Formats: sequence, structure tokens, C-alpha cells
Amino acid sequence: MPRDKRMKKYIAEGIGTFFLMFSTVMATNIGDIAIMAPLIIGLTLAAMIYASEHISGAHFNPAVTLAMLMRGKLARNEAFYYPVAQLAGALLAAILGGFLLRAGYATDTQMHVHKNSISSLLAEFTGTFGWVYVMLNVTTVKSGSGNSHFGLAVGCVVAAMIYVLGGISGGVFNPAIALGSIMTGMSNPGDILIFLAGNLIGAAAAATAFQLVHDHEE
Amino acid sequence: MPRDKRMKKYIAEGIGTFFLMFSTVMATNIGDIAIMAPLIIGLTLAAMIYASEHISGAHFNPAVTLAMLMRGKLARNEAFYYPVAQLAGALLAAILGGFLLRAGYATDTQMHVHKNSISSLLAEFTGTFGWVYVMLNVTTVKSGSGNSHFGLAVGCVVAAMIYVLGGISGGVFNPAIALGSIMTGMSNPGDILIFLAGNLIGAAAAATAFQLVHDHEE
Amino acid sequence: MPRDKRMKKYIAEGIGTFFLMFSTVMATNIGDIAIMAPLIIGLTLAAMIYASEHISGAHFNPAVTLAMLMRGKLARNEAFYYPVAQLAGALLAAILGGFLLRAGYATDTQMHVHKNSISSLLAEFTGTFGWVYVMLNVTTVKSGSGNSHFGLAVGCVVAAMIYVLGGISGGVFNPAIALGSIMTGMSNPGDILIFLAGNLIGAAAAATAFQLVHDHEE
Amino acid sequence: MPRDKRMKKYIAEGIGTFFLMFSTVMATNIGDIAIMAPLIIGLTLAAMIYASEHISGAHFNPAVTLAMLMRGKLARNEAFYYPVAQLAGALLAAILGGFLLRAGYATDTQMHVHKNSISSLLAEFTGTFGWVYVMLNVTTVKSGSGNSHFGLAVGCVVAAMIYVLGGISGGVFNPAIALGSIMTGMSNPGDILIFLAGNLIGAAAAATAFQLVHDHEE
Repeated sequence: MPRDKRMKKYIAEGIGTFFLMFSTVMATNIGDIAIMAPLIIGLTLAAMIYASEHISGAHFNPAVTLAMLMRGKLARNEAFYYPVAQLAGALLAAILGGFLLRAGYATDTQMHVHKNSISSLLAEFTGTFGWVYVMLNVTTVKSGSGNSHFGLAVGCVVAAMIYVLGGISGGVFNPAIALGSIMTGMSNPGDILIFLAGNLIGAAAAATAFQLVHDHEE
Repeated sequence: MPRDKRMKKYIAEGIGTFFLMFSTVMATNIGDIAIMAPLIIGLTLAAMIYASEHISGAHFNPAVTLAMLMRGKLARNEAFYYPVAQLAGALLAAILGGFLLRAGYATDTQMHVHKNSISSLLAEFTGTFGWVYVMLNVTTVKSGSGNSHFGLAVGCVVAAMIYVLGGISGGVFNPAIALGSIMTGMSNPGDILIFLAGNLIGAAAAATAFQLVHDHEE
Repeated sequence: MPRDKRMKKYIAEGIGTFFLMFSTVMATNIGDIAIMAPLIIGLTLAAMIYASEHISGAHFNPAVTLAMLMRGKLARNEAFYYPVAQLAGALLAAILGGFLLRAGYATDTQMHVHKNSISSLLAEFTGTFGWVYVMLNVTTVKSGSGNSHFGLAVGCVVAAMIYVLGGISGGVFNPAIALGSIMTGMSNPGDILIFLAGNLIGAAAAATAFQLVHDHEE
Repeated sequence: MPRDKRMKKYIAEGIGTFFLMFSTVMATNIGDIAIMAPLIIGLTLAAMIYASEHISGAHFNPAVTLAMLMRGKLARNEAFYYPVAQLAGALLAAILGGFLLRAGYATDTQMHVHKNSISSLLAEFTGTFGWVYVMLNVTTVKSGSGNSHFGLAVGCVVAAMIYVLGGISGGVFNPAIALGSIMTGMSNPGDILIFLAGNLIGAAAAATAFQLVHDHEE
């Protein structure tokens, strides 16, 4: 694939991850809408997947990129730049979100408390597994090509998992969001290993489970 | 169908029912998100149906399995293993959910009160009828093959029915969820017969109603 | 069309309107979920439209039936029985809902207050116009045949209109729901003329607007 | 294109923008449903896009019209009348909404406070960018023709952006809604330049970003 075509993918990954991180930092820090925050993040993710899947595959998450690599849906020479673009998008969104939140916007920061490392690891593993398992099934299976539900399905599972696991680990499920989450004070820097381990192992487990329930030629 | 292919279906049923039960136990026991709990369960169900329909038909519910058997969409030799896989998934989710909830996570258990057995039976019958009637219409009718709304439609009716009937019977509509619900203290063991009767009769009634409104060759 | 085929349609209309009315009476009378009630009704409507459109066209509303007649999408000999089936479904749901609500279920009846007849009439007109205008565009236009959004689109507009107009007229938009709403004490019997006029004129206006924005051969 | 055909488009733009503005003014001014207001607006937008895309492209927003012009999806001789129709629809909705809100309907006006012009400008830019970027990707890309998610995707991103940015700039993202918003006292007349600049520059930036991630022949 020509370099120009690949660059388009990285830009699309950056834009999508930007909006995902931007929704996350804003929705989580505005006390009035706390009850809707996971839904808001899911709506944003669904919309951005619909907008970008035909360009880059709409990963927006290094853990999804790892799973797509294992699934054979990503060229090896792109596997490094995808996370770079995702991290850049998340970084930019954290900066803009931080600026807007400090600029006089009524906020009520809800610092996520990680009460227990084992619980957090399990929570991040389970949520990432759900995200990646749904993603692989709705975007990489031939019998579903041309479907119109791929964004909705991923948005639904991510919103639901943030609702039920947000209070345990922060409900990150994504190393790029983890970075922005730490930068904006929503997560502790010391938790980065929990996020990395939970997310990458969860994604690898989901990719393995996907292979287990599909024939190899699919 | 080869044994290997059938095993894939059972695994997919187990994973889907796991997430359905996991959402149920977590969302129902976190006081902060009580108002969103039925929606969270519906979002999870929609996502998992989208992820699994092409593999196993996405039953996640012995009552749906009964209706699919009556509809002629399930081989008899699979009809026993489907509920086994569903119960196993629900069991695992109840164990993980119970562990996370006990591990220091702020909870506010909302024990469902069954004020009246007749009301509970009617509630479980009505909710299961709605789930199964929609499911049969959106996943087993030829004119709708290839549609992209099958997961959304079932998720919508299940969320709505849990909202309006949750306070009466617990809004279970599913023997596998009933098991997990009893294990995690959300329902009383003595209610298992109400769930079994309401769910299986509701599913059979929906399958009958489905036949009534369709030609037999469909 | 053979009589047997027509009977299937009436049953499907009855089942769909039953669930629409059942969600309405339950969701409106359970104080805990008042903020979600319009969304619950919209979710139910979306699901039932997905389940029934291929059978009966999924009207569930005499005002929609009127508009479909004007649009030429309903045989004249069916136009009488559709409302009969819809009213029967609504009646049954009002009875079951009333029974469940009285049977010890904690309720907090939110009687709709009609402060002003002109406002109520405008509200019912606007809401019905929205419902019917969307319905005609997503289910009767050739270029959209086979689309998967028809149920979602109607569910969205109906939920939104009930949210914003519910406090004015009750947000009925449907003579069959008006009947059940009066039976269960949610609306005053004296308002039936406002509902009938607002709904039928709103539907006729929407059918006219539809013709205005489409070529006649469509 | 014949004049008659063009007139149909303007009417469809007027009806769609009417409902978008009507939802906005009503949902924002009813205190009871404040937490749902952005979702209500998003549901309305999704439904109206599904109802109108095949007629007019479903812009409902002069900023979207600008982006569609840049994208080459709108004839130049229509580019003037689209905003006229949108403004007329918004005006009518502001009048009806104002009448209903004053006619005894319990209201709790939530005047948007613009604390900071730079923040408001950034907020309007970001929200409009999201709306237009998603819109261009889901309605003007060949590989997605015939998809059923175009309305949902736009409704999702707009709801999410109003949730997270509503408290900063009012979450308008649309000069036609800005007009109605000022007329009904939800925004200050002095902010019109912030809206115009934020919305039109945001739309132009999104159209540019769209070109950047697509090949020119698409």
C-alpha cells in the first residue's frame, strides 16, 4: 500500500481517538452528567467507528490494534504507527479537555479510586475482552460484510462495560485512553501497568476466543 | 454438522450469556447506576447478539432455545448443550461479579421483592413473550435476512421490559439469568419455579404466536 | 388477499399495540423510572416495529393507519379492522397493566395535567406529525427498501416527542393509546376529542407533507 | 434539476430543521428532563436524517450545507436556498416552542452562560467539526452507499457533543439553531459571531480533514 494511503489511516485513527478521549475527559469531569458519562463515551465511539471504519478500521485503541494484528487484518509495517497516531490523538484531546475544564467550566472531578489491583486487573481484562470480541465479530467476519451495526455494537458493549466497571478500574480498556486519563488526573500514574497488562492480555484473549469460535479460513 | 462446529456454538453461547449475566449482576448491585441498569443490560445483549448470531444464533437463554427448537431452527442434538453452555456462562459471571462486588466496591444491593406470585408469573410470562416474539421475527424470517437491526430490536425490548417489570418479578425472563440471580442473592431460591414456568411458557406462547402470524413455509 | 393472510396482520397489530400500551401504562406509573419513561416507550415501539413491519406494516396507531390509507399502502377493506385490532391490543394492555399496578407494585401515578386545550391540540398535532412523517419516509419509499433503520427512526422521534410534549398533552399521538390512557386514569375522558382531532389531523397533514416532498410515482 | 424538485428539498430541509429546533427549545427549557436534553435532540436529529436524507441530504444546518458545497455534493444554485429554508424552519419552531412554553407549561429556563469567548469558540469549533466529519463520512462515501447507520451516527456524535460542550457554549454547532436559540433567550445576541465563526470554520475544517483522509476520486 502506498505511503500516502497509509498516512490517511493514521490521520483517521488520530481524529477518532481524539474524540473518544475528548468525550471521556469531559463527560467524566462534569458532575451534572456523571450518570450519562459512559453512554456519552459509547455514543462517541459508535459515531467515530461509523465515520472511520472504511478508512482505517476504526481501532482507536492499541489493544484493538494488537488483536487486529493477531487476526491478520493489519499489515505489520502499520502496527507501529497505529498506536502512535492513537496516542497523539488522545494527548491532544487531553490538552484541549484540560484547557476547557480549567477555563471556568463548572466541574466536579470524579477521581477514580482503584481499591484493589486484582479487581482492577480483572475489570480491565473483562472490559477489553468485551470490546475486542465484539469488534472482531462485527468488523472482520465475511458473512457480516456490509452490515450497518458494527459501530452500534461496539459502542453498546463499551458503554455497558464502563458503567459496570468504571467504579473499579476507571473503565479504560485502552492504553491510549489510559495515557490521557493519567495526564488529566483521572487515573494514577502507578496504574499504567495494570492498564497495559489488562488491556493487552484482554485483547489477546479475545482474539484467541475469536479464532476458537471461527473456522480458520474465515 | 461436525462436532467441532457444534463446540464453537456452545463456546459462543457461553461467552454471550457470561456478559449478559455479568452486566445484570453488576448493574443491579451498583446503587449509583440503578436508573440505567435495564438499559445497560439491553446494550450488552444487543452487542453480544451482534457478535454471536452468525455463530450460534445468539440465544443466551434456555427459553429462547426452546422457542428456536419449536421454530425448527435448532438441531435436536444441540438442544441439550445450549442450556448447559448458557448456565455455565451465567455461573462464571455470577462468580466473577460476586468477587468484584465483595472486593471493596461500593455497592447498594437492591434485593428484588416478589410481592405476589401471580403478578411475578404474569410479569415473567409477558417479558419472555416480548423477548422471544421479537427474536423470532428479526432473526428467523427470510424477508429480513441480512438485516442490521436484529441485535438492536432484541436489546430494546429486553431493556424496556426490565424497566417496567423489574420491580415486580426482577425482570429475569431467562432461566440462566435466574440461576445467576439466585446465586448472587438478587432473587430468592423459592422463586425458581416462577421463573422456569413464566419463561418457558412465555417462550412457547411466543413461538406459537409467531407461527400464527406467518405462513408455514416461511 | 386471502382472509387468512389478513387475519395474521390484525393479530400482529394487536400484539404490537399491546406492548406499546403496556410500556406506556407501566413506565408512566412507576415513579422511580419517570425520567426514562419516554425512552422506554420508544424502545418498545422500535422493537415492535422491527418485529412486525413485514407482517402488517407495524402501524399500532389508527392515525398511522389513516396516513397509510392516504398513501395508498393499505387496502380499503383492511382499514376498518386495523384500528379494531389496535384498540383491542391497547385495551388488553390497559387491563393487565392496571392489574399489575394495583397488585402491590409501588407506584406513583403521574396524572397528566392538560393546562390548555389549544396547547394540547398543538402538542398532539406536532407529535403525531413527527411520528407519521418519519414513518412514511422510512417504510414506504422505494429507495429505502430493505433498510435496517425504520424501527429505530420511528422509536427515536416518538421518544423525543413524548419527552418534550408529555407535560403538555400527555404525549399520546395515537387514539389507541388515548383509549388505554383514559381507561387507566392517565388522561381525562373529556380529552378524547383533543386526542382524536390532534392525531388524525396531524397524520393527514404529515401524509400531505409527504406527498409534497415526493414525486407522485414514488 | 427542475425547480419543482428543488422546492421539495427546501421543504424537507425546513421540516427537519423545524423538529431539530423544536426539540432543542423544548428539551432545554423543561427542567425535569435537563439530564436527557442532549439525547432528546440527538434522537430527533437521527430520526429526521433518516426521514429526509433521500430528499434533501438532511443538512438542517448551514454549516453542513457549506461542507457539502465544499465536498461537491450540492449545486451552487441551491446553496443559498438551503440556509433560507433551515432558518425558516428554526424560526417557526422557536415561535411554536415559545408559545407552548409560555402557555402555562412548567418551565425552568436554563440560560446558557458563556464564561469565556475563547472556550466557546473552541467548543463550537470542536462540536461542529464532529458533526460534519461524521456526516461527510457516513453520507457521501461510495463504499457506504445504502448503509442504515447514517442517521444514528450523526445523532450519536451530536448528542455526545451537546452533553460535553453544552455548558461551555450552549452546544449549538449550527447557525440556524443559533438564531432560534437567541430568539428564545437561550443564547445572548452578542454571541452570534462566536456561533457563526465556530460553526463555519469547524465545518470547513471537517470538510478539509475529510478530503485529507480520502482519495480525490471518491
